[in-house]
Amino acid sequence: MDNNLHLSQHISKRFNQELEEVRSQVLKMGGLVEQQVSDGLLALLEVDPELAKQVVDKDTLVNKMEVEIDETCTEILARRQPAASDLRLMVSIIKTITDLERIGDEAEKLGKNAIKLSQEGGSGKQFSELAHLGENVKKMLARALTAYARMDVEEAIDIIQSDQAINQEFDNLSRILLLKMMEDPREIKFALRISWCARALERVGDHAKNICEYIVYLVKGRDVRHTSLDDIREQIKD
Amino acid sequence: MDNNLHLSQHISKRFNQELEEVRSQVLKMGGLVEQQVSDGLLALLEVDPELAKQVVDKDTLVNKMEVEIDETCTEILARRQPAASDLRLMVSIIKTITDLERIGDEAEKLGKNAIKLSQEGGSGKQFSELAHLGENVKKMLARALTAYARMDVEEAIDIIQSDQAINQEFDNLSRILLLKMMEDPREIKFALRISWCARALERVGDHAKNICEYIVYLVKGRDVRHTSLDDIREQIKD
Repeated sequence: MDNNLHLSQHISKRFNQELEEVRSQVLKMGGLVEQQVSDGLLALLEVDPELAKQVVDKDTLVNKMEVEIDETCTEILARRQPAASDLRLMVSIIKTITDLERIGDEAEKLGKNAIKLSQEGGSGKQFSELAHLGENVKKMLARALTAYARMDVEEAIDIIQSDQAINQEFDNLSRILLLKMMEDPREIKFALRISWCARALERVGDHAKNICEYIVYLVKGRDVRHTSLDDIREQIKD
Repeated sequence: MDNNLHLSQHISKRFNQELEEVRSQVLKMGGLVEQQVSDGLLALLEVDPELAKQVVDKDTLVNKMEVEIDETCTEILARRQPAASDLRLMVSIIKTITDLERIGDEAEKLGKNAIKLSQEGGSGKQFSELAHLGENVKKMLARALTAYARMDVEEAIDIIQSDQAINQEFDNLSRILLLKMMEDPREIKFALRISWCARALERVGDHAKNICEYIVYLVKGRDVRHTSLDDIREQIKD
């Protein structure tokens, strides 16, 4: 595909291997946070404190992976002094793992809230909109990680656009929760908890969007953050 | 001071200049987001929709600075291929400006909420705890930026520790707001708005903490994220 990244050919075969290894580490970290978000949501909907605790505990693993990949990148930068697309790859990885780590933090929040919810006797299932938002955020994250693995710019731009729908869903759910609280003040604590979870999911969407922006930057060498989608599409045509 | 960073001496005087320039760009961006947080808080407390609008508008300036500094760093990495402490400086800058940009986003949220609050007829002043939290977050951010300018590791560690107090303050305010909502359901919308603002301030504290962790990484070459404070102090002693 034209829009995919062609890593420069290196004289050193070993360097190629190193780049592939760090890329696969990032994908592994991506797979882990994807599972964390999925489990965090499930624990919330099924009121499963055991699973929730696992999610909270596993966050240290996510953090550890971030530090390790960061170190690998700094080492490669120092030793190989990459230029052009390899350098952009390094910078984009350093940025991507920051977002992956923060997605991990949001999953941890889902887990912590699921534990509290189980103690307080509520269930995330009472709001079908939460499950719906969660499913869409999971899909968005999965698509972002696949686009990252394939360095697929067209898909990345589609995903960036889909964040607007997630934000709208979040706004809708917020309104529903506000009404719920006003109707029945005894439900305020419960509704607030659902609201924190919805916010965590919405932020996962934001981070998935960031990752897609790094894909465009990496492949096209253009910084698309803070740029309107129409402008990005225009630029991509060049 | 022993704990301060001694940038390596470069054969090229021009390279020294470039590093100093990018560092001063970061400090300038830091000054801007500091002002944005300060103005956002003021707009909220004084119900000043004009000032709030200025904060929202100025966020594009913050975003623009991030993109520019990012480009400068990538260019320096490509052209100068720095090693050791210079390389760490570059990586730490790339990370720091991500946090500065996100502090800018939180300030923008304060501005947007201040505008809505002015339309809904409430005032942030009704909760003295919000002003108090805001002042402490502002202080923490100012200290973090000064520690960054001076590359002061001891101070950075103190600031990392102070984030716990900010989080406690936030938790307290959250409890107060919950009680308020339960007591008077007509105040739910208002209390929720204050709650979003408090969360934005708490996140500014988180980002200030991140910046301090990059200072330790930069000066000591150790990755202190996800490390307990006692462990960091132990490591610093070496």
